[in-house]
Amino acid sequence: MTDRGSKRTPGPLIVIGGGEDKEGERVILREVARHLNGGKLVLATVASHQPEGYFEAYQTAFADLGISDLVELYVKDRAETLDPDKLRVLEGAAGVFFSGGDQLRISSQIGDTPIEQRVREIHQAGGLIAGTSAGASMMSETMLVKGTSGESYKIGDLHMAPGLGLVRNVIIDQHFAERGRFGRLFGAVAHNPRELGIGIDEDTALVLQDGRFDVIGSGCVYVVDGAGVTQSNIAEARPERALSMYDIRLHVLSSGDTFDLARRRPAEVPDVTTSHAIETPERR
Amino acid sequence: MTDRGSKRTPGPLIVIGGGEDKEGERVILREVARHLNGGKLVLATVASHQPEGYFEAYQTAFADLGISDLVELYVKDRAETLDPDKLRVLEGAAGVFFSGGDQLRISSQIGDTPIEQRVREIHQAGGLIAGTSAGASMMSETMLVKGTSGESYKIGDLHMAPGLGLVRNVIIDQHFAERGRFGRLFGAVAHNPRELGIGIDEDTALVLQDGRFDVIGSGCVYVVDGAGVTQSNIAEARPERALSMYDIRLHVLSSGDTFDLARRRPAEVPDVTTSHAIETPERR
Repeated sequence: MTDRGSKRTPGPLIVIGGGEDKEGERVILREVARHLNGGKLVLATVASHQPEGYFEAYQTAFADLGISDLVELYVKDRAETLDPDKLRVLEGAAGVFFSGGDQLRISSQIGDTPIEQRVREIHQAGGLIAGTSAGASMMSETMLVKGTSGESYKIGDLHMAPGLGLVRNVIIDQHFAERGRFGRLFGAVAHNPRELGIGIDEDTALVLQDGRFDVIGSGCVYVVDGAGVTQSNIAEARPERALSMYDIRLHVLSSGDTFDLARRRPAEVPDVTTSHAIETPERR
Repeated sequence: MTDRGSKRTPGPLIVIGGGEDKEGERVILREVARHLNGGKLVLATVASHQPEGYFEAYQTAFADLGISDLVELYVKDRAETLDPDKLRVLEGAAGVFFSGGDQLRISSQIGDTPIEQRVREIHQAGGLIAGTSAGASMMSETMLVKGTSGESYKIGDLHMAPGLGLVRNVIIDQHFAERGRFGRLFGAVAHNPRELGIGIDEDTALVLQDGRFDVIGSGCVYVVDGAGVTQSNIAEARPERALSMYDIRLHVLSSGDTFDLARRRPAEVPDVTTSHAIETPERR
C-alpha cells in the first residue's frame, strides 16, 4: 500500500484458482497474510450454500501465519445484507477473503448491496481482496458461471453473468487445467476479444496490483489473448456446433512470471510484431 | 488417390482422437469407408494387450457402411511379425485401421519390422491409413507416450518416443479436451517448436492428404504453433517446476475447417504479420 499524496491506491487482489495448499508450505495463504501485516481478515463464505466448516478450516490453515484476527461473514440472502450486524463485521478490516462455492451466489446475494459497497471501499482504501475458486471468478466484470468442463466449447454453451468487477477487461476461470476448462475460456474470449481470458490452476494464484500481476503457487496461469483472432464461428446459429477460432495468442505462466495487463504482455518481454514465424522455414 | 504419371501419391491418413461414434451417424467411420471404396480393410489391433472384442465391435459398426472385406491383424510380439501368415493378412489391402490401446505397443512390436514396411508400402501406393486413440498417436515421428492429463505440464514430465512417422513435424495427442491434455501438448511443443502440436478430441478426426487436413466429427482439433514463442523454461532443471511459455499461437478448428501444414495456417486465411494487436487500444 503506497500513499499518493492524500489519495490511497487500491489494494492488491489475490486471485486463487481453488484448492490452495492449507497444510504444507502454504505459499498462497502466506502471501495473503503478508499483505495483511497483522490486520483483520474477513472470511466471506457467501459463495457457499452450506458454509459450515469453511471458517474452521481457514482458521487452522492461517493459525501460525500471523493472522490473529479472522472473522466470518456469511449472508443467507439479500435481506441479510441490510443487517447492521453484518456490515459491522467488515469494520476495520484490512482484507476480505472470499472462499469457494458458487460465484452466482456471491453476485446475486451481495451484488449492489451495502456489503458489496463496503468491500469496494476496503479495496479502494488499500485493503486486500482475495478470492479462491468461486471467489476468484467473481472478481471480473464478466464472470463465467457454468459451462462445460473436460470438453471443447460448443456455440450454445453461454453461461456468463456480471461479476463484482474488481478487475476489468478480463474473464477469470479457476480449477483450470485440473477440470479441463480451456474450451470454455476460449469460447468466452471469442464473444468479445476485448476481454483477456485468465485461467488459474489449483494451488496457484495471481497477485494483482497496479495493472500487473505476479504468479505464485505450484501450477500455471493461462492468458488467452483474442485480439489477433482472424476468424471465429461464435456468432453461428447452431448450438451444438463446436468452436472454431484461429490465431489465439496464449501465454503459459508459472511462479515467478509477471504479466502486464495494460500492455497484454509478459513483463520484460517486448512487444513482438514479427515473432510468429511468417516465412515457413524449410522443414525436413 | 490421384495418378501423377506412373507414380502414385501417398494415400490419405485419417487420424482420430478416440471414441468415434460407432452407432449413430458414424461420420468418421463413414469417411473411412468412403476412401476404401469397397476395398479390403485391415483392422490392426496391435495396440491392445487384450484385443478380444475390438474386431467384432468394428465389424458391427462398419457393417452397413459398405465395408465387406474386414480382416484383423494382431501380433502378440515382435517374433510374430516374421510369420508369413501375418504378412499375408495385409495382401491386397486398400487400407489399414489401427485401433486404440497403448501406442508404445504399436511402435515397440511392429516398429522396424516387415509388417511396418508393408503398412508404409500400402500408404505410399495410395492406400488409406487410419488410426484412433493410440492409433492416432503413433502416426507422428515423435509420439507422446504417457504424460499427465488434467493438469498443467511440469518440466520433468517427459514421455516421448519415436512413432511410425507417417506424418512429419507434428506431435499428435488424442482424447484431447476430454482428458485435459493441453498442458502436456504445450510441454511437448516447448521441447522443439519445429513440431506442430495437434490435439484431437474424441469423435473427431483429421483427414490428411497432400500436406493439408480437413476436420470432421463433433469436437475440436487444436493446433499448437510454437514458432513464435519468445520464452520458455523447458530447459530448466527442477522437474517439479510448472511450465512457462510465452506467445504460443493456437488454432481451434472444427468440422469444415481445413489446415495447411506447410504454411502452418488455416487454409484460406492469409499469413498475418500484424494480426495480433500490438498497440493496446484504450480499453474502458
